[in-house]
Amino acid sequence: MIRELIEKNRTYRRFYQDVEVSRETLRGLIDLARLSSTGGNLQSLKYVLSQTLETNNKIFKTLKWAGYLKDWDGPEEGEKPSAYVVVLHDNLISKGFFWDHGIAVQSILLGATEKGLGGCQFNSIDRVALAQELNLPDHFDIVTVIALGKPKEVVVLEELGDSGDIKYWRDEQGIHHVPKRALDDLIYNL
Amino acid sequence: MIRELIEKNRTYRRFYQDVEVSRETLRGLIDLARLSSTGGNLQSLKYVLSQTLETNNKIFKTLKWAGYLKDWDGPEEGEKPSAYVVVLHDNLISKGFFWDHGIAVQSILLGATEKGLGGCQFNSIDRVALAQELNLPDHFDIVTVIALGKPKEVVVLEELGDSGDIKYWRDEQGIHHVPKRALDDLIYNL
Repeated sequence: MIRELIEKNRTYRRFYQDVEVSRETLRGLIDLARLSSTGGNLQSLKYVLSQTLETNNKIFKTLKWAGYLKDWDGPEEGEKPSAYVVVLHDNLISKGFFWDHGIAVQSILLGATEKGLGGCQFNSIDRVALAQELNLPDHFDIVTVIALGKPKEVVVLEELGDSGDIKYWRDEQGIHHVPKRALDDLIYNL
Repeated sequence: MIRELIEKNRTYRRFYQDVEVSRETLRGLIDLARLSSTGGNLQSLKYVLSQTLETNNKIFKTLKWAGYLKDWDGPEEGEKPSAYVVVLHDNLISKGFFWDHGIAVQSILLGATEKGLGGCQFNSIDRVALAQELNLPDHFDIVTVIALGKPKEVVVLEELGDSGDIKYWRDEQGIHHVPKRALDDLIYNL
């Protein structure tokens, strides 16, 4: 069951933009992050929820999409995410946040997957611009951004080829392919 | 459903040590991590699986347990974890690993929870000693350790009190209490 959900939870970059994600849905997803483990139980991550066109647009323009798809700048109008979660670190609470961002994002995206939604996590963010756009106080650092919506693309896992190239690609039909290492290549035998 | 699993996935530090965790079970959990998202699809994390007394003991002695429980040094014999996953970063693949460790650990622990197991993630590790004990090659950095087993304690979430103290505590009955911030305290309203 959890395996099915994890398999279904792929990175999606094109969405049915007209399918809204309610604030209540977003709050429910953040509650999954809240109930998840955090290093030293510090709970230093905070979340900005966005599902209005105005804040969605502010966030969208600070993101860089799909580093390996050189001829694609991101989703066009009509296929953009309908919601975002901006993950912040509250540096009044702690200096660092261990692995909390990964745990929180995985909980949020598994919850989204269960609801028929999907998303994409960003590290390529113009953080200075986004902090200004959202008028964030100084004690918040932008950790990551999660785009959310109803996925409008097919993502398929592939075996990693002999070249060892891990770059994902999109085929002529627009299907997105993601090469994954084999299980035995991830296990180090003592 | 995912919410129930996340609620059940608490940090456990005492286990029924005689309940073994098979290598196949551990491989299945690593497969959940394998199928999960990784930054830039780099897939740079590798895993050591341990479920023999010999390697379990090597790992155990490098861990520091429960920072907030000052008068408890960790589980006694009979209540120790029956298995471990040591999460490594392969620095031949990439310089960093984004949020991958959090995502991988959350997938592993949710999978463990579904199987009636539970665990604890460590940052307080004598990494130098552990690398020596396991005779790890230089291109591996120890990211974190996950202890696994069948939980032998009850963990209860609590509302954070007015003091704002996030330290967990254990009561006279041995029940472990973990204060959690309220949902509204995690959401930053623009």
